[in-house]
Amino acid sequence: MEVSRKCEALLRLLALAVLVLTACLIRTNTQTKLLFGFYRKKATFKDLDAYVVSLYVDLAAAGYNLLQFIRCLSPRFLQPSAGTKLTVLPCDVIQYWLCFLLDQATAYLVFAANCSATALSVMAVTGSKSLQWMKLCDKYTRFCYQAGGHLFCGVVASLLLAAVASASAFNLFRFYSPKYFMSRKT
Amino acid sequence: MEVSRKCEALLRLLALAVLVLTACLIRTNTQTKLLFGFYRKKATFKDLDAYVVSLYVDLAAAGYNLLQFIRCLSPRFLQPSAGTKLTVLPCDVIQYWLCFLLDQATAYLVFAANCSATALSVMAVTGSKSLQWMKLCDKYTRFCYQAGGHLFCGVVASLLLAAVASASAFNLFRFYSPKYFMSRKT
Repeated sequence: MEVSRKCEALLRLLALAVLVLTACLIRTNTQTKLLFGFYRKKATFKDLDAYVVSLYVDLAAAGYNLLQFIRCLSPRFLQPSAGTKLTVLPCDVIQYWLCFLLDQATAYLVFAANCSATALSVMAVTGSKSLQWMKLCDKYTRFCYQAGGHLFCGVVASLLLAAVASASAFNLFRFYSPKYFMSRKT
Repeated sequence: MEVSRKCEALLRLLALAVLVLTACLIRTNTQTKLLFGFYRKKATFKDLDAYVVSLYVDLAAAGYNLLQFIRCLSPRFLQPSAGTKLTVLPCDVIQYWLCFLLDQATAYLVFAANCSATALSVMAVTGSKSLQWMKLCDKYTRFCYQAGGHLFCGVVASLLLAAVASASAFNLFRFYSPKYFMSRKT
């Protein structure tokens, strides 16, 4: 297996693991609190829409990276013809473009979901006087610590996916000529 | 001037214009409302930390893209030696790597700022019963429409910066060999 293919597979496996971990941390995050001695109130990830979106986006990205990881390992399917010859077939280039675009979209989507969840979580910690939004983490401390945990995992996942997207760009653009615009090497 | 250089300059100019427009829309967004007939209350972009962060990030990204745009236009400075010969000097490669990393960072930063602001704005429109966060756009309608405007501009700016980052990746990675991992063409 080519070195770049090995790096890509490793990055994808890491990203997959971190995404699954993030999804698990979001899904299991729940805290029940006894208010005024009798009134039970429960905080779950469903209270914040951004967490729900984050969960689904993370799972979708994990599924996509699993498929791509299998593609990286498979010896027959979509292997670069570059290892054997310098030219690359047009059908391969289309596949590389598809991978590049999907990887970019995945990286930005996971990043977006994580940033939105982080912004709302920061607001839940600090509250806002001018908007009359109350603080929430005074009441649900354990919930907020776990939220911090999955947000951190989300940052790690975003960095890994950005690296995967860069590797994907590397795999695609190295087939292009440095001399002429958008023409492939011969 | 090379075609890829022209495309890059055009993309950077567009991104610069949209970023400046976004910053202006954020900065001028203010609405004063008379509550109960005598009590004046003012909504500004400073009420939401995410808008303040967004403003500074947009301005910084605009400044960076202005510098890069000047670099693209300048005939002597950092022009690709690729137009004349197939090999590229090591010092040029370092500069391309620097551009690539800075462009990636800019794209992700602007995207992060915009996503955070969007998440909080959606919360300001919908409110949250379970979190006891009140709706705000019933009171400050014009403020919220302008906020929608700069969030949309932010999305356009993010897309343009993602395209710039891709162009930057193209400029860098096409100097690498499709045959051997991380070795440059000779």
